[in-house]
Amino acid sequence: MSHPVDSDVSAVRTYIEQHRAAFLDDLAEWLRIPSVSAQPDHAADVRRSADWLAAKLRETGFPTVEVWATEGAPAVFAEWPANDPAAPTVLVYGHHDVQPAAREDGWGSDPFEPVVRGNRLHARGAADDKGQVFFHTLGVRAHLATTGRAAPAVHLKMLVEGEEESGSVHFRDLVEEHADRLASDAVIVSDTGMWAEDTPTVCTGMRGLAECEIHFHGPDQDIHSGSFGGAVPNPATAIARLVAALHDDHARVTIPGFYDGVTELTDRERELLAELPFDEERWLRTAKSYATHGEAGHTTLERVWTRPTAEVNGIGGGYQGPGSKTVVPASAMVKLSFRLVAGQDPDHIEKIVRDWTADRVPAGIRHRITFAAATRPCLTPLDHPALQSVVRAMGRAFGKPVRYTREGGSGPAADLQDVLGAPVLFLGISVPSDGWHAPNEKVEIDLLLKGVETTAHLWGDLAENWRHES
Amino acid sequence: MSHPVDSDVSAVRTYIEQHRAAFLDDLAEWLRIPSVSAQPDHAADVRRSADWLAAKLRETGFPTVEVWATEGAPAVFAEWPANDPAAPTVLVYGHHDVQPAAREDGWGSDPFEPVVRGNRLHARGAADDKGQVFFHTLGVRAHLATTGRAAPAVHLKMLVEGEEESGSVHFRDLVEEHADRLASDAVIVSDTGMWAEDTPTVCTGMRGLAECEIHFHGPDQDIHSGSFGGAVPNPATAIARLVAALHDDHARVTIPGFYDGVTELTDRERELLAELPFDEERWLRTAKSYATHGEAGHTTLERVWTRPTAEVNGIGGGYQGPGSKTVVPASAMVKLSFRLVAGQDPDHIEKIVRDWTADRVPAGIRHRITFAAATRPCLTPLDHPALQSVVRAMGRAFGKPVRYTREGGSGPAADLQDVLGAPVLFLGISVPSDGWHAPNEKVEIDLLLKGVETTAHLWGDLAENWRHES
Repeated sequence: MSHPVDSDVSAVRTYIEQHRAAFLDDLAEWLRIPSVSAQPDHAADVRRSADWLAAKLRETGFPTVEVWATEGAPAVFAEWPANDPAAPTVLVYGHHDVQPAAREDGWGSDPFEPVVRGNRLHARGAADDKGQVFFHTLGVRAHLATTGRAAPAVHLKMLVEGEEESGSVHFRDLVEEHADRLASDAVIVSDTGMWAEDTPTVCTGMRGLAECEIHFHGPDQDIHSGSFGGAVPNPATAIARLVAALHDDHARVTIPGFYDGVTELTDRERELLAELPFDEERWLRTAKSYATHGEAGHTTLERVWTRPTAEVNGIGGGYQGPGSKTVVPASAMVKLSFRLVAGQDPDHIEKIVRDWTADRVPAGIRHRITFAAATRPCLTPLDHPALQSVVRAMGRAFGKPVRYTREGGSGPAADLQDVLGAPVLFLGISVPSDGWHAPNEKVEIDLLLKGVETTAHLWGDLAENWRHES
Repeated sequence: MSHPVDSDVSAVRTYIEQHRAAFLDDLAEWLRIPSVSAQPDHAADVRRSADWLAAKLRETGFPTVEVWATEGAPAVFAEWPANDPAAPTVLVYGHHDVQPAAREDGWGSDPFEPVVRGNRLHARGAADDKGQVFFHTLGVRAHLATTGRAAPAVHLKMLVEGEEESGSVHFRDLVEEHADRLASDAVIVSDTGMWAEDTPTVCTGMRGLAECEIHFHGPDQDIHSGSFGGAVPNPATAIARLVAALHDDHARVTIPGFYDGVTELTDRERELLAELPFDEERWLRTAKSYATHGEAGHTTLERVWTRPTAEVNGIGGGYQGPGSKTVVPASAMVKLSFRLVAGQDPDHIEKIVRDWTADRVPAGIRHRITFAAATRPCLTPLDHPALQSVVRAMGRAFGKPVRYTREGGSGPAADLQDVLGAPVLFLGISVPSDGWHAPNEKVEIDLLLKGVETTAHLWGDLAENWRHES
């Protein structure tokens, strides 16, 4: 079903080799801007980072580049139309803000003074996410140069936000405000990674998230457990019983309707996940945990990537200080989060959790439950033509079979899916050892250039194999 | 089986009436000493309170009065031997320290400047416990004056500690150190109350207490619930499941062996408890609670007084701040207390709780459990001759039938029982409205004088009806 594409692997590599030094120098310049969105005293740096990127995208050739203000940090939008009006429109998503970093956290060098050691470029943001945003600049130039085009084979848009590391609090509003400008046939998120340096992978989905906080109120104040204990309901016991009832003995969530609509893995998807070289001991070390535990009938990777969960993020009630205090606590609370998978609707989840909780509140306990804004799950079918283009482009760049992963976490890309109605694809070249959010964050330079190479092949493949039917 | 006693009700009343004014003046003087043991800047006041009491006991006629130092606040010991060496020895227990109190907490007058309003004497310590210690001074004098004795009919000892309101931390050591001096056939605790102003009662037992703290450790640090959630054990979920497993659906404790040896209520004891004018609505208001809840097959009073419990005093784990944090917590903990009743052994309880917990720790969770020093339960059989003497003496003083209660809390009196091997009896005249530990604490003056009157009858009755068999 796939057609040959017009990009040439060796021509692309030659082009990248010629421009590699300038590309890395430019990236280093951007990495020197400490665009830490969570720290108010770096607000000017975040703005400077947006301006720097906007200038570089103009230099790259994007005819339209705008810095979009938000209530918080600015985002950068760029657009480069294809000459063929029937070409598909692709929106690349990334972010230009970074996590906080300080030398004394354990960095071997200044986190905002990039250092190359062997194949590694160390700096805050090298992998998360400046490096992965930046490979698109050289990628589109390689695409043009090696195909002789004046414009990309697809309508190319980029949206690079400035608040991802501080919760993307204004992102949904931004996307809704500019929905017309952002309209696209597919979203390509370059803010993720691959399985391992020697195992190129594409991520095909991301879990969603519903979060709530449940408070149980018993006595009007803490009361004496000698005088009253054993004869009135204890809200801490009651909330523990609620939490305990969340899962059955097979670690399945017991809330009626919780699995309604869940898209089960196909046999093919299971096989594909099983092809990944998974080492449970190594995975446990990454999880800093001492055993695996989860829903019966599923492997560890299936559990974290493809199955919905109910997790306690925090629980509290009564006296938690040193020593003892013999009270029946006045109240107790639990913070729950539910990871959702394709087919699950956060509104439905909220409703059934509310009903299930209300049904289980003991007599004499008053309860309150509040939900935060939910994030929907994303899942791209394996046979989606755009996904197949990503897989082919990556395969040409890496010269290896590309395998499939998913993402267990939840991210703002789901807002793009929801508002724009476009499928979300993931193109990332970071590896687990890159140390996102940690000291000595780095990116593997070879992989960064494989990212460039992938996009150099991608736009032509997409235009060729996924005609926009309108 | 009971013999007539030599005290005369009207003679006792006349004597008390004659000395009432001086008695109340003396008590007021003592109440002016702010003997707050929990506040270090009142340490000198606590010492002054002990010295004041020692002087007053000497003035009362006790031939031996000593102030016993501890690592903390001093206790007062007094001894007045009977002329008959075969007379039983009785140790009265109380405390001379008080709870903190400040005008701005809501007091209508200075908490350390006693005020009489109608039948009520308001001051910190009026009921808890200076008033109830002090009625023994006039009581023994009335006993002597109205019977023409030179010494009490029993070997009378008093131990008035100075740290009850700050946890009696040195009390056990004090009792063990002076066990020979404190040796007695019965302990009479005057630090409790009666059911109501118009319902004189004696308390026949007190629950014991075992306390532990259980920690569950999962990942080495909080981990991302998106990346790992659903595939590793969550210690907060695990501790909730442990807590939920503590009770069955009948609110009975499920730990195997928990009820081993429990002294069940006799039919007579159940009848006696049922005779109390119990108003559940009023009780719930006192408990500041909205429903009763407890072990099936037992009334509310049976639950708080006669049944062992497992209660959560505190629970905590993960993120408890505002908003959300999507983590699988590194750890969670619960503080549990077990109220114990006669027949239960705290060492056995500790062992079975440890075993039960260890059996329920999921794979991948490491646990730690620590127990605090336990307090044993006390229970005096209804037919104990000393208890019958207390009931008769109280009945003569009040001119009403005396009913039976128990105490759901746990107290240092259990140390006296354990170290001295003597049964613990309770003689208290405080009523629930006295406001222990609260602003505007008061004692009903009429009831205080009924306390005097009760002891004026008690010592003769005890000597007559409970000969020391040695």
